[in-house]
Amino acid sequence: MNKHPLRQQIEEIVKLTDDEFDFVLQHFRKKSFKKHQIILHEGDYAQFDFFVVKGLMRVTKLDFDGKEHILQFGMENWWITDAEAFHNKTKSTLIVDCLENTETLSLSLESKEKLSRELPKMQTFFLKKTTNGYIALQKRILCFLSSNANDRYHNLLTLYPGLIQRVPKAMIASYLGVTRETLSRLSKIKA
Amino acid sequence: MNKHPLRQQIEEIVKLTDDEFDFVLQHFRKKSFKKHQIILHEGDYAQFDFFVVKGLMRVTKLDFDGKEHILQFGMENWWITDAEAFHNKTKSTLIVDCLENTETLSLSLESKEKLSRELPKMQTFFLKKTTNGYIALQKRILCFLSSNANDRYHNLLTLYPGLIQRVPKAMIASYLGVTRETLSRLSKIKA
Repeated sequence: MNKHPLRQQIEEIVKLTDDEFDFVLQHFRKKSFKKHQIILHEGDYAQFDFFVVKGLMRVTKLDFDGKEHILQFGMENWWITDAEAFHNKTKSTLIVDCLENTETLSLSLESKEKLSRELPKMQTFFLKKTTNGYIALQKRILCFLSSNANDRYHNLLTLYPGLIQRVPKAMIASYLGVTRETLSRLSKIKA
Repeated sequence: MNKHPLRQQIEEIVKLTDDEFDFVLQHFRKKSFKKHQIILHEGDYAQFDFFVVKGLMRVTKLDFDGKEHILQFGMENWWITDAEAFHNKTKSTLIVDCLENTETLSLSLESKEKLSRELPKMQTFFLKKTTNGYIALQKRILCFLSSNANDRYHNLLTLYPGLIQRVPKAMIASYLGVTRETLSRLSKIKA
């Protein structure tokens, strides 16, 4: 029998007994969404962090001119939310929507904190995942500082293998902060 | 008596007894460095995460052309290291050096993990600090995506109050990924 994808991800960091994983899973709620559905609107409270079981979501920022910037994609086995609004219980400044029909496991902040308290190895898991996310963002910033769009493009291919076949080119360009023309040039350069 | 700055920072997130803080402090080693001293060279292992008690450090990336990009500053009450090399026990791709004489408390990964295991509220502290760092990096990326150098400049003023008086303008420009001329223009615009 295949291991549950959430259990598989947790067990890359800490081992769980069957009972412990059952306990973990009790803190999540299954939520399914349709393609194009908006899961979190700007100005709403971000009640959940979503673990993507199947499908594809994204986090977007609309700037003052109405231009859309893609902060993050979330496909299978990724966690996705407005991190600031979720953790600080503030109103969201970002938008979360679905690019495909998507199945998730959703975790509230209260459940995350309860899990962390009652099963400290889950806190070890959350700390390791957050640290990895922090390191990935540092790399993305270094690519911006060196103004190297080619590095950014290849980082994206490494970070999200398979993504490029699933989303329109305009969204990849938005994530990279480049024009469609630059993206087209980048996709012809070998790493 | 003034509270120890490390204790003050921890207690913004979790409360500690005197005995617990003594236990925490036993895991740190005092290390002092001179202005211009390089604490971590590219290619070295990052043995420590540094809590800055007094002074000013920075993390830099040298690109292939020898151009210097500043990823992070660390002044009083900041944590600073090559996060990837430190957490993954890999060779550093970044450089950490001192812009002023600097006093730190240094923590090894082994000590961080031991503290997290033996005093779970310290893991809660590390998780909250890392989450806050993750959120700050997301904001910096959004400023890059919207290509808004003015936002980046004002984010820097908020993130590091007082920094701008302590470092050369060229370093501020390097952190923001702008030219000296652009920085000069930005510093004349009111927020």
